[in-house]
Amino acid sequence: MEFLQNTWYFAAWGADIEPGKLFARTLLGKPLVFFRPSGGAVVALDDRCAHRAAPLSMGRLDGDRVVCGYHGLEFDGSGACVRNPHPSGRIPAAARVRSYPVVERHTGLWIWLGDEAADPALIPDFSKLDDTGPSVTRRDHMVMDAAYDLIVDNLLDCSHTSFLHEGILGNQPMIAAPTEVRQSGRTLNVIRTARNVPPPGMFDMLFRQDGAPVDCWTDFRWDPPSCLLLDVGVTPPGRPKEEGTGYFGTHILTPETERTTHYQFAATRWNIRAGSETEEMRQKISDLRRFAFEEQDEPMIRAQQRIIDLTPPHELKRVLLETDAGVVHWRRIIDEMIAAERRPSERLAVGA
Amino acid sequence: MEFLQNTWYFAAWGADIEPGKLFARTLLGKPLVFFRPSGGAVVALDDRCAHRAAPLSMGRLDGDRVVCGYHGLEFDGSGACVRNPHPSGRIPAAARVRSYPVVERHTGLWIWLGDEAADPALIPDFSKLDDTGPSVTRRDHMVMDAAYDLIVDNLLDCSHTSFLHEGILGNQPMIAAPTEVRQSGRTLNVIRTARNVPPPGMFDMLFRQDGAPVDCWTDFRWDPPSCLLLDVGVTPPGRPKEEGTGYFGTHILTPETERTTHYQFAATRWNIRAGSETEEMRQKISDLRRFAFEEQDEPMIRAQQRIIDLTPPHELKRVLLETDAGVVHWRRIIDEMIAAERRPSERLAVGA
Amino acid sequence: MEFLQNTWYFAAWGADIEPGKLFARTLLGKPLVFFRPSGGAVVALDDRCAHRAAPLSMGRLDGDRVVCGYHGLEFDGSGACVRNPHPSGRIPAAARVRSYPVVERHTGLWIWLGDEAADPALIPDFSKLDDTGPSVTRRDHMVMDAAYDLIVDNLLDCSHTSFLHEGILGNQPMIAAPTEVRQSGRTLNVIRTARNVPPPGMFDMLFRQDGAPVDCWTDFRWDPPSCLLLDVGVTPPGRPKEEGTGYFGTHILTPETERTTHYQFAATRWNIRAGSETEEMRQKISDLRRFAFEEQDEPMIRAQQRIIDLTPPHELKRVLLETDAGVVHWRRIIDEMIAAERRPSERLAVGA
Repeated sequence: MEFLQNTWYFAAWGADIEPGKLFARTLLGKPLVFFRPSGGAVVALDDRCAHRAAPLSMGRLDGDRVVCGYHGLEFDGSGACVRNPHPSGRIPAAARVRSYPVVERHTGLWIWLGDEAADPALIPDFSKLDDTGPSVTRRDHMVMDAAYDLIVDNLLDCSHTSFLHEGILGNQPMIAAPTEVRQSGRTLNVIRTARNVPPPGMFDMLFRQDGAPVDCWTDFRWDPPSCLLLDVGVTPPGRPKEEGTGYFGTHILTPETERTTHYQFAATRWNIRAGSETEEMRQKISDLRRFAFEEQDEPMIRAQQRIIDLTPPHELKRVLLETDAGVVHWRRIIDEMIAAERRPSERLAVGA
Repeated sequence: MEFLQNTWYFAAWGADIEPGKLFARTLLGKPLVFFRPSGGAVVALDDRCAHRAAPLSMGRLDGDRVVCGYHGLEFDGSGACVRNPHPSGRIPAAARVRSYPVVERHTGLWIWLGDEAADPALIPDFSKLDDTGPSVTRRDHMVMDAAYDLIVDNLLDCSHTSFLHEGILGNQPMIAAPTEVRQSGRTLNVIRTARNVPPPGMFDMLFRQDGAPVDCWTDFRWDPPSCLLLDVGVTPPGRPKEEGTGYFGTHILTPETERTTHYQFAATRWNIRAGSETEEMRQKISDLRRFAFEEQDEPMIRAQQRIIDLTPPHELKRVLLETDAGVVHWRRIIDEMIAAERRPSERLAVGA
Repeated sequence: MEFLQNTWYFAAWGADIEPGKLFARTLLGKPLVFFRPSGGAVVALDDRCAHRAAPLSMGRLDGDRVVCGYHGLEFDGSGACVRNPHPSGRIPAAARVRSYPVVERHTGLWIWLGDEAADPALIPDFSKLDDTGPSVTRRDHMVMDAAYDLIVDNLLDCSHTSFLHEGILGNQPMIAAPTEVRQSGRTLNVIRTARNVPPPGMFDMLFRQDGAPVDCWTDFRWDPPSCLLLDVGVTPPGRPKEEGTGYFGTHILTPETERTTHYQFAATRWNIRAGSETEEMRQKISDLRRFAFEEQDEPMIRAQQRIIDLTPPHELKRVLLETDAGVVHWRRIIDEMIAAERRPSERLAVGA
């Protein structure tokens, strides 16, 4: 799948970039190096020295400059070469590496890799992550061996929780929930509510720990290209959400390569029952979520990827179910945005 | 090498498909799932859900239906979707997966992957496997890292036993045996008899355990595409076969991919000397054969494959020896059959 | 990068080819087998039996003949098949494998893979290796996961020692050394002399072990295609070389494949201080050099290779620094030689 370029991608958690250290990560097949200048905003550069293509991330930081570890050229945060240590000291005009706009927001780093102007107003709202206290669980990261679009499909069709995560995040009675899609601009919400069902294991743990029936909702917000915020929770049957509990789940995907994807996730709890949520319990919730992604979703999606790769394209017809409403919508939007990038004269107004 | 499609391939040993369990195997680059409905014949389906291409083998069996482990579509043994568990329950017309004819015969499962009608009469005769008692050694399986045609070449030129398996299955004096080929329809027999030679180690073990000279014969029957039955044994010099001992060796190959091959093998003993063949000894014979295939044939054929892959095609001229008679014949037959598949109007009569 | 064919490549150390044993090595993507006939010169053949393309190196030596381990054809040192062990004994006219000129010189084996006549006078002078006594350290070999040209670039731009090997083979004050290139025919010398600088660690160890300033020179001689001899040493500031100490470093590269390279190296010491250089110390020097190549150069060059492979070619513009003078020169010469091979009518006079 082709990647959308003119958009904000989540590059890393802000805390990943430690003062004085270089941080390497490949996004959309492009090797990048990140660092945090003293008192300044995080910098992202092509991880490729202008001299001989060595990765700058194998060098070192000297103050606010990256020193290439191979032959010592020095670059500042704009990507300009500011020192040639060799006798002439001459700096060739072409000695620069590309730098990319980075915005640190909602405890994450957002990078713009495209050629168009980057507008920070387009960064999706993940203010649920702003709270740096204990209500946000571990800010997690894993690399999945699958194309990012298969993971978005996974998330926007929550009916899979009743099968793949049965007992933990879903169960058979929840299948009855209808799937509703709302679109606003380029933002989608895919909403399911299962009424008067036994609580899935993790939610029983978070709520009343008595197995009594609940209403359980999932409301997945998607923003291009692959930034998802889940509003999920349980409440006593027929009662308003406020009488229950739940969390906002951050699920942000960034392609590493065509076949591998950075998966960033965290959960922001609300209505925690007094005294019920110890540090140990928060750890357990994080572990359970990571288990579901790593031991259930990832093997399935990786296997799905393998099957797709082995199948001749003309045999790859897939039928649509009513639960695919969200999948159909996000693919339509992203396909249009990618097509518009290819035809610059007909560019859609960004943010339209 | 292109694969013949309209033919029976050995898919697995019958015992591999246990009631209530799904069994995944890739044949000819095609991922398949097998299962055994209650009281019915083994079913083979494309291992790819019609919904989202997830492998059905990662789901579960519910009675005689496969339930996809991702979003729960259910398929019967014909490949038809018979249940959509989601609220509407509607089953799209296209919701089916391809099923393939499977025949269980001679303790193996035979699958027909081509588009032409499958005629069970074309399954080669491996009735030597029908005996489920102790005269048939372990029904074995391994995957070799080489194209299947190189393994057929290996088997149909038994002169290699004097070099690659020297001391176990062959020896220098046996080189003197002439190679004779008989063709009947599309069945070949490649026959070698070494007269009055020291017995190779495994045969001495099976026969008189005294190292006294024997006549030793190998008669390899080949049926398309890669089903071989070996009649091998030793007898006192000049005496009829019936006075000696030997076994019928099953060697059935099925391409997994272009570069890997399922190798199924077993040996059916005859004229076992009273009291000589304990369970321990049968185990030892199985182990020795597996050793020869796994530790001698496989490294050589894999290395041969590597050399072929590294060599520019125009440099790959190979000379023919008299011992290649069987190799030349099977390749001619299979090439003709593959060519005929490509030109449907000129199809050879199947089984001609 | 395309490879130059009509040139001498270093195939192995002479001692690698032991009497009675076959030695397999892939050079320029071509699998080869080497052996040492009794009383004769080392033989190099295509490692591919004329019969069925099995690697001859998996067979055995019988006197001065290679016996194929698969079906027993025998080849002499010229590559001619001299025995067919099968009943007819007939040897097909085409039953031969290509043999390549090999010269054993300077304790190494040099092979000519091209079609033009091989002239041993073109073998570069590595007589510094002729001494088989203790003044030559371990004759070493490693395989680097990078194209050979990136390694030549590494060696011909010694300014990298101040960064990548800082403290061991270089240091910051040595950056001040100018880079000078001399060309004579197709031989280059790339020379740098750092004056009155602290001695890099390894050289202090070899010299006075007091950290007192030295003049430190590196003079890298390059001969096509990738044969380098380093004259490196330290001497008291302003004093002639003879008052110091150093070594001649052999660095000979031979492509294994497009992305992997055989790296052969050794050091020939001179002006060893009486009593200072025990066997233990020589071992330590060898280990330190191997460490620098294996733990510093190799990871950097492999990472550089990865970056180059990930970068679209049009984005791979590299700026030149004054320290690249040697790099520019060797690439110009080798490119001309490769281009000349492609246009036989305009062949440059070999050795011109």
